[in-house]
Amino acid sequence: MLAVWSGRHAGHDPQHEVQFGERIPIYEVPARAEAIRAALEADGGFSLVGPRDHGTGPIEAVHDPAMLRYLEEAWRDWEALGRGGELVPHTVLHPGLREGMGPAAEPSTPAGRIGFWCFETMTPIVAGTYEAVRAAADVGLTAADAVLGGERAAYALCRPPGHHAARAVFGGYCFLNNAAIAAEHLVRETGEPVAVLDVDYHHGNGTQQLFWERGDVLYVSLHGDTRRAYPYFTGSPEETGAGRGRGATMNVPLPEGCSDDRYLDLLDRALEAVAGFPGETLVVSLGLDTLAEDPITDLALTLDVYPEIGRRVGALGRRTVVVQEGGYHLPSLGEGVVGFLRGVGGG
Amino acid sequence: MLAVWSGRHAGHDPQHEVQFGERIPIYEVPARAEAIRAALEADGGFSLVGPRDHGTGPIEAVHDPAMLRYLEEAWRDWEALGRGGELVPHTVLHPGLREGMGPAAEPSTPAGRIGFWCFETMTPIVAGTYEAVRAAADVGLTAADAVLGGERAAYALCRPPGHHAARAVFGGYCFLNNAAIAAEHLVRETGEPVAVLDVDYHHGNGTQQLFWERGDVLYVSLHGDTRRAYPYFTGSPEETGAGRGRGATMNVPLPEGCSDDRYLDLLDRALEAVAGFPGETLVVSLGLDTLAEDPITDLALTLDVYPEIGRRVGALGRRTVVVQEGGYHLPSLGEGVVGFLRGVGGG
Repeated sequence: MLAVWSGRHAGHDPQHEVQFGERIPIYEVPARAEAIRAALEADGGFSLVGPRDHGTGPIEAVHDPAMLRYLEEAWRDWEALGRGGELVPHTVLHPGLREGMGPAAEPSTPAGRIGFWCFETMTPIVAGTYEAVRAAADVGLTAADAVLGGERAAYALCRPPGHHAARAVFGGYCFLNNAAIAAEHLVRETGEPVAVLDVDYHHGNGTQQLFWERGDVLYVSLHGDTRRAYPYFTGSPEETGAGRGRGATMNVPLPEGCSDDRYLDLLDRALEAVAGFPGETLVVSLGLDTLAEDPITDLALTLDVYPEIGRRVGALGRRTVVVQEGGYHLPSLGEGVVGFLRGVGGG
Repeated sequence: MLAVWSGRHAGHDPQHEVQFGERIPIYEVPARAEAIRAALEADGGFSLVGPRDHGTGPIEAVHDPAMLRYLEEAWRDWEALGRGGELVPHTVLHPGLREGMGPAAEPSTPAGRIGFWCFETMTPIVAGTYEAVRAAADVGLTAADAVLGGERAAYALCRPPGHHAARAVFGGYCFLNNAAIAAEHLVRETGEPVAVLDVDYHHGNGTQQLFWERGDVLYVSLHGDTRRAYPYFTGSPEETGAGRGRGATMNVPLPEGCSDDRYLDLLDRALEAVAGFPGETLVVSLGLDTLAEDPITDLALTLDVYPEIGRRVGALGRRTVVVQEGGYHLPSLGEGVVGFLRGVGGG
């Protein structure tokens, strides 16, 4: 199977995230991508290639161009403040701040800009962030191109991840929504509908928002019930899309301690929705943070289940782009990803 | 002059605020209120009295009752997490998260709830916060009652401050909008329009939001230009209200390094707007953070100017409730407040 990756992810190397105002070591580290790459290489069944530069067009087809411009300028902004370290917001544009007043304009001052575009304190910007997120988008697009070119499946080793990034806000370790950018690219290139299946532990709130009113992109997500789990403000089964997108969003909340068997049952329900949706192409947002050992989540999946999840996804018979999202238990990450991909590929 | 205060403010005693993800000693400390109280007592021209309990009615006339309930429950929520310390959010409900999807429902989980109601990381909740903010609202209401009872002017030594709290979101050291609660109480009790003049360094975004569409409450604010200054997302002179409130909001941005003379010129413009507004009653949001020595702001006012600001406010001839907001240079705080109040009272 073709696997696309870029070493430029390593430039995005913040040391901390801020939880409840406390700086702790960040879970989303460069070693994640390196662990996966090493496992792909060791397996021998994957051809690793670099990404092709797609420019800003496919990104701006999904995200507000002003957010992309901000990401390009953010580190320079921060350096101009002379503070050093890593940029996270302290003051965020909350809807209650302008209730009844209409949308805000982007502030010009750095402290205002970061809170205009970012919704939380766990996604620091550092000097190499912009180059890394542009490379991650290209990794996803290049894997999509491979599938457009006839490959049955391709893997995009994206880092940073993407599924929490919405049209005009980022956070949750994510800056640009690599899976959504790839899906939109596939829609435009094929002229056909595309399904997105999100098996990361966390609800892909960004992807849901981006395709909420789109009838030509199905979004189906299995995730820790957001009544208890990040990102809190979306992800309920009552959310099914709007306008032309009515019925093209499906959320399947997972209970705490969810087992392999229970997960596979719920997965089958999600796969039925994909099978009933038109189109030949599937994008999978793959997170390994559903694993029992994951340090930031609360399910009970074992490593053995990932090949079976992959097998059931592969059984859909769709051309498939697998895009890496989360997963924070470093010792299991490579095995989990390889297992899933071999399942998809029938290996 | 009557001065209302409550010792219960002291229960709100967080040690830190979080700026750009970094914990630093908080500027909004109990010693602020104690410094002002000591200066009022030393002056001899003030009668200090405690607040009367007004219940939740006047608060719920201004704020979302669900936010008040959250403030009452927040510390219990936080203790249930077993984390200790001080509660600030890490994930905030940003409008981009639900763009096109309609408003969010309040999450049930503590990490979601705090970011649903609070827009930043500099307003920690501790064990005594709820009692303190309820007392501060009563302090403002009791000063308003004094003016309703015939006093020419009364001072509310509110702490925590209030003017950054909007209908359904809090932050900026503020939880409940003491000045807005007092203003609404005055409107309801007199049946007449009320003007609010905000001379705190920071734009009173909460007060503006609360009265944005109200023609019976004028909001006039002089503040550090929010193109450079907190709270960033509101405060421009183009914002003048909407609906019945069109023309009843006036923002006067102040340049960096603003001098006494320049300030008084701009103040006169603001006072003209108040003089042209019907009604007999004025609420002043008083911040001393316009002072050159203030550690978190950038104007160049001297202590000598506050009696003159007070004198010009007093010359409006309106019954006046002065509500304490910010001011973080402890050694000057008492002298500044007393000077302002003596100016208002003609002393």
